[in-house]
Amino acid sequence: MTSAPATPATGHIVVSKLHGLGNDFLIVLQDGEGGGAAATRPDSALARRLCDRHQGIGADGLIVGTRLASPGAVDCLLRFHLWNADGSEAEMSGNGIRCLAHAALDAGWVPEDTPFGVMTPAGRREVDIRRASEPGSTWGSVEMGEAKVRGEVDRCNVGHGQLLVDVGNPHLVVLGPDPATVDVATLGPALEATDPAGLNVEFVALGPGPDEVKMRVWERGVGETEACGTGACAAAAALHHWGRVGTAVTVHQPGGAAAVELHADGTVTLAGPSVHIATCLVHP
Amino acid sequence: MTSAPATPATGHIVVSKLHGLGNDFLIVLQDGEGGGAAATRPDSALARRLCDRHQGIGADGLIVGTRLASPGAVDCLLRFHLWNADGSEAEMSGNGIRCLAHAALDAGWVPEDTPFGVMTPAGRREVDIRRASEPGSTWGSVEMGEAKVRGEVDRCNVGHGQLLVDVGNPHLVVLGPDPATVDVATLGPALEATDPAGLNVEFVALGPGPDEVKMRVWERGVGETEACGTGACAAAAALHHWGRVGTAVTVHQPGGAAAVELHADGTVTLAGPSVHIATCLVHP
Repeated sequence: MTSAPATPATGHIVVSKLHGLGNDFLIVLQDGEGGGAAATRPDSALARRLCDRHQGIGADGLIVGTRLASPGAVDCLLRFHLWNADGSEAEMSGNGIRCLAHAALDAGWVPEDTPFGVMTPAGRREVDIRRASEPGSTWGSVEMGEAKVRGEVDRCNVGHGQLLVDVGNPHLVVLGPDPATVDVATLGPALEATDPAGLNVEFVALGPGPDEVKMRVWERGVGETEACGTGACAAAAALHHWGRVGTAVTVHQPGGAAAVELHADGTVTLAGPSVHIATCLVHP
Repeated sequence: MTSAPATPATGHIVVSKLHGLGNDFLIVLQDGEGGGAAATRPDSALARRLCDRHQGIGADGLIVGTRLASPGAVDCLLRFHLWNADGSEAEMSGNGIRCLAHAALDAGWVPEDTPFGVMTPAGRREVDIRRASEPGSTWGSVEMGEAKVRGEVDRCNVGHGQLLVDVGNPHLVVLGPDPATVDVATLGPALEATDPAGLNVEFVALGPGPDEVKMRVWERGVGETEACGTGACAAAAALHHWGRVGTAVTVHQPGGAAAVELHADGTVTLAGPSVHIATCLVHP
């Protein structure tokens, strides 16, 4: 099915809802920077209205994907703009950019199985996407930049190691018992608060196979979530630092599995599924 | 805008999302009992999938409205079938039946401003609906059956009166201070548990005008919600029993205001708004 771009002629906005590992987004596609009447141009207020889970469609965020008229200048086919459900703007989301690429693939705006650039407030990101066997599903990879190991710490008496990792945002990776047995609701906020700016906290254990990791994540300012893209990258980087996994790591999370590839230059590629849930018409 | 009925020819299901006072529903319209291939017929599994707030569209429930081929036999234009988000079946919902009537009005299946019958598992309900001034909004009323005052009780040291009322389900109405100041998260579950079968608990105060009530509601098995149709009926019936309001009562809830009319025979009419949020295409 094709997610057609917004068609102001009908007086409605076309919004697609997709999710990546349970992280859900509303996607609006715009053809060119100047397109659309001012009344229908997505903004912070529209994000709050549409992302409301009872009086709107409901999602973690609203992403506007703009098809760039002259890809050559910035070497990007799309511009990515994300508002969180509370109307604040976000620089990047590993799960969100896959969902945008999926919607753009459905619209015929980007190629399948051929890398292309997406311009985000955090800079250019290289994306590669292909259709998966499940109808309405794709598998996509995104260059996530560098995962920087900051050093060992000792902030709780859980497990065998604790490492600070920066993936554009700060993470504390705790290697311990099976995450299913960890009291994340208590330990998560306690560890988040061990840094004045807050921390995302990943509780990880090895397995079930080699180069596989089980993970539950406590997101700074949010709480426990079904999956976290930068958290998966931080977890893989930490376990590789500890010599427990290689450079191609599967990270099992409650929302599903992500694949992380660690490159020699310190950069990380995050790959995972995205699923098309619905294509919706809403009032402007 | 018209919410077209499901069109199996395209391979997709048309689902409308509406809400009444923050109580949100997905509505699927079916033309006739036999319509639609078995694969696309809504069921408990579809309700769980679509009502999931992260991996589906998200809603409190899925309602299937079937246009009845021979209204004369049961004197009803529609059949109402509601699955809760967890896949269980519900007999009736005052907010839900208004949302269904709204979607059916958009489809041209029911008249505006003329009462018609809707067949529910709880029996026939008379519904009257008209368009409101806000685009995409209607105002509808539903006959809710009888509100039976069961008697005074003394289950907490809050307020000036406590009354058990049955509106098809059991309610405890607590007349006390401004509900905004009540610790509903603590008192709600404590009072719910004072009956072996559980209770819905309404914390009410008079005002701001005459025949007006401020209410917060704790729903049995759910928690605090933005609004509750039977709860509004119970609150109005209790305050009328205490001689504090007349027979036409406005009940202000966090999700908005409902209007309750108490009839001489003990039956109650509940009226309130419904808002069309989106029309969605989903995979079967």
